[in-house]
Amino acid sequence: MTSFAGARRFGHDKVEKQMDVYKSLREEAYEANLEIKRQNLAIYTWGNASSFDPAKGVFAIKPSGVVYDDLTPESMVLLDLDGRIVDGKLNPSSDTKTHQVLYNASLIYKEFKGLQGITHTHSTYAVAWAQAKRPVPIFGTTHADHSAQEIPCTPFMDAEAVKNNYELETGNLIVKTFKDANLDPAHVTMVLVAGHGPFTWGKSAAQSVYHGAVLEEVCKMALLSLTLDPNLQPLPEHIIRKHLERKHGPDAYYGQR
Amino acid sequence: MTSFAGARRFGHDKVEKQMDVYKSLREEAYEANLEIKRQNLAIYTWGNASSFDPAKGVFAIKPSGVVYDDLTPESMVLLDLDGRIVDGKLNPSSDTKTHQVLYNASLIYKEFKGLQGITHTHSTYAVAWAQAKRPVPIFGTTHADHSAQEIPCTPFMDAEAVKNNYELETGNLIVKTFKDANLDPAHVTMVLVAGHGPFTWGKSAAQSVYHGAVLEEVCKMALLSLTLDPNLQPLPEHIIRKHLERKHGPDAYYGQR
Amino acid sequence: MTSFAGARRFGHDKVEKQMDVYKSLREEAYEANLEIKRQNLAIYTWGNASSFDPAKGVFAIKPSGVVYDDLTPESMVLLDLDGRIVDGKLNPSSDTKTHQVLYNASLIYKEFKGLQGITHTHSTYAVAWAQAKRPVPIFGTTHADHSAQEIPCTPFMDAEAVKNNYELETGNLIVKTFKDANLDPAHVTMVLVAGHGPFTWGKSAAQSVYHGAVLEEVCKMALLSLTLDPNLQPLPEHIIRKHLERKHGPDAYYGQR
Amino acid sequence: MTSFAGARRFGHDKVEKQMDVYKSLREEAYEANLEIKRQNLAIYTWGNASSFDPAKGVFAIKPSGVVYDDLTPESMVLLDLDGRIVDGKLNPSSDTKTHQVLYNASLIYKEFKGLQGITHTHSTYAVAWAQAKRPVPIFGTTHADHSAQEIPCTPFMDAEAVKNNYELETGNLIVKTFKDANLDPAHVTMVLVAGHGPFTWGKSAAQSVYHGAVLEEVCKMALLSLTLDPNLQPLPEHIIRKHLERKHGPDAYYGQR
Repeated sequence: MTSFAGARRFGHDKVEKQMDVYKSLREEAYEANLEIKRQNLAIYTWGNASSFDPAKGVFAIKPSGVVYDDLTPESMVLLDLDGRIVDGKLNPSSDTKTHQVLYNASLIYKEFKGLQGITHTHSTYAVAWAQAKRPVPIFGTTHADHSAQEIPCTPFMDAEAVKNNYELETGNLIVKTFKDANLDPAHVTMVLVAGHGPFTWGKSAAQSVYHGAVLEEVCKMALLSLTLDPNLQPLPEHIIRKHLERKHGPDAYYGQR
Repeated sequence: MTSFAGARRFGHDKVEKQMDVYKSLREEAYEANLEIKRQNLAIYTWGNASSFDPAKGVFAIKPSGVVYDDLTPESMVLLDLDGRIVDGKLNPSSDTKTHQVLYNASLIYKEFKGLQGITHTHSTYAVAWAQAKRPVPIFGTTHADHSAQEIPCTPFMDAEAVKNNYELETGNLIVKTFKDANLDPAHVTMVLVAGHGPFTWGKSAAQSVYHGAVLEEVCKMALLSLTLDPNLQPLPEHIIRKHLERKHGPDAYYGQR
Repeated sequence: MTSFAGARRFGHDKVEKQMDVYKSLREEAYEANLEIKRQNLAIYTWGNASSFDPAKGVFAIKPSGVVYDDLTPESMVLLDLDGRIVDGKLNPSSDTKTHQVLYNASLIYKEFKGLQGITHTHSTYAVAWAQAKRPVPIFGTTHADHSAQEIPCTPFMDAEAVKNNYELETGNLIVKTFKDANLDPAHVTMVLVAGHGPFTWGKSAAQSVYHGAVLEEVCKMALLSLTLDPNLQPLPEHIIRKHLERKHGPDAYYGQR
Repeated sequence: MTSFAGARRFGHDKVEKQMDVYKSLREEAYEANLEIKRQNLAIYTWGNASSFDPAKGVFAIKPSGVVYDDLTPESMVLLDLDGRIVDGKLNPSSDTKTHQVLYNASLIYKEFKGLQGITHTHSTYAVAWAQAKRPVPIFGTTHADHSAQEIPCTPFMDAEAVKNNYELETGNLIVKTFKDANLDPAHVTMVLVAGHGPFTWGKSAAQSVYHGAVLEEVCKMALLSLTLDPNLQPLPEHIIRKHLERKHGPDAYYGQR
């Protein structure tokens, strides 16, 4: 850690850049943050994505309050799993500790293993569901193509946790929600934090943004279906299973392999 | 079939391309897939279009999981009516067998005759209706300009059919829905598959995408009208007839002829 | 009329274009049709605008079934008030007779005087209200800035009228709706045709498209307000009056004069 | 005032421009008006922004009825706090007196101090709430990030006030609404004028437009959440406080400082 702190103090020069061991991590985080904007998942600075390297125990995340058009790979902030800045001149996203908790979980709990990218946005329909504190039922195959279960919504955080360390406790709340309901984060790659908004993840930063876009679309479709039938029941189980398996099962046949 | 399998094995060269008997079929499918994106009927890879040549018994379809910006006419996959690949290096769309069943139907049943293009998307409002398992009533002339009947919605597929051959059975379900309700696929060029989404068709791939866009707009208008009047009744029959006839009857006078 | 029919038969040459007495009429209609697309009031060919010269008794209208990107000023169709083509090689919009009736009304009835542009679209929210057969109440100043009254909705046309001459009877239905309710078409510049969609007009083709965009936005706002309060009452009369007067009264002070 | 009135009469020349003491004020107002369009908060001319210099007692505002694409910094109209034109050849926005009252309030009342930019739009969802005369409850952290209280809605203006001086009384109504409810305009930077639409403000014209965009998004999210749960209760107080403080409290840690 020391040498990077030193590199940070003395600034970047060309030599340093050529040997930047975090180059791809920065670029993955940078590209994912740009994709947040391209997919219309956030206005202004209302979303952040990060990319995690489990071997190095370091993640790259969007700097706080910087608009997407001003981002560069170099502006990404690098942190270790204790939340210490490894490299970067700017303050990291105010949601950094939530990312940090989930990346720690990926090293601690086997069911979180492989989580290497996280996206948080305030996308409109996902926030509408989070505000209504309703998990999103599986009403169709668009949802089932990505998850065989409803999209969970956390309870509200209690006053004590909010006071202690809000963003870190947001991460804990997500982990607890998954553990309590025995949900597998490799198959349910998204969550609504009650009253707040969505966090999504994946095997890469890019995949976590994709899941953010999937969630927004699924939330919009589900809300519209409920407008047509307020008592709508979920998709039958046998169709849910089939759609998940054709994309994600051992015999998956979607895409190019 | 043998020679094409051979052509596929040895790859494409310039000579082959010059004599490509599927050139226009590829290009029609390619253009229709691009139009899916231009009309905002799908995000990422969530839609596919195909083009069918009844004389050759071959159709061209989008490769699976490839984003629209990466498509080329050459990347289209050519299949025969038994689902065997005639030409193309990529896996065809995972919905290929649904297309295949409908093209087979166009040779078997006189009412499906002339069906030469199919589009499947997950467009938002059409999916909302499909998820709600509600046929779309004719509430206005926008709908009646394209069909004199409500847009049908299939029942859910049973567990046995899902297990057997899901996408092929989706095609069978569509054909059965039309036969059971005595619907004419030349006049009702669209269907909602319950819990899934829309399939639309036409005399060409281009027309099938157009019908996909019509369906999305009609579904949005109908949902909004129901918001204003949850007990809304369909358009009177004499207006429905008139609108259909002015665009599609023997004395049609819409457009340039 | 003869000479124009002749000009049409022999086609256009440079000399003819230089002396084209309908040049500005064509251009106004052309620009208004492009504006339909720019304001997202129609997809494909689902809208048409026309421009009327009362001195010549001639109007220019969009050709039928031609997409906006393919339009040129020269492709506009010129018709007289009996619906005979004065100039133009293409079929006029299938809604031409509705335009024709309203332009005739502008010469017959003093309250329709000055109507020199008409726009018809299938814009989403205006159609939703037309399908629901609900006049749009004045819920706010956005509406009152343009009209001191609710936006009327015609009744359904009866079977006899539909059979006789549908588009011409649509025009008659609009005129009758205004006469029966004693509405002033100079102040209420828009109508919903039940089950069909909006017709808007103004002192020019450009103004008629503007009113089409106003109507769409007002319809969207009104529907959303009803979602928040299904029993919402109209704006108090004293505010309605004020807003209309500041834009349209004798002491209007909006804009540059 | 005299010299500027003189400058106005004799027009602008290069020398004058070089010594334009209102240059930055004009540019701030100009940029904020362009941002209204970029953020899709108004169609045509349906929104206006202004920038205030408390030291000079002068504000720059959009000219009335001019479309955004035709604006220039020079076209901004400069007025003093009595509403007299200090510089500018065009009529100022018809909403000018509402801006004027709020800028006067910033010099009179300590709680309005520092208000240096105002934006008024007819953005769709904010207008929907204003028409429904409903204050917007805090349903989520997107709202709480910007204000710890619901967004207030004024009562309707009475007939006498409308008659007297409508736009000036609109300003008075806003000030009275804040005083009656003991609201702090530095923390609640937005208001819905019943039946009309939103006014938002900030430390600069740019910030006032930002608050206009925040309001529109918060109004959309709140309406959608109510669709999912018509009896939805506000966010718990301890979460509201936390979100406000992390962005705006003395120990705020959002953004770069």
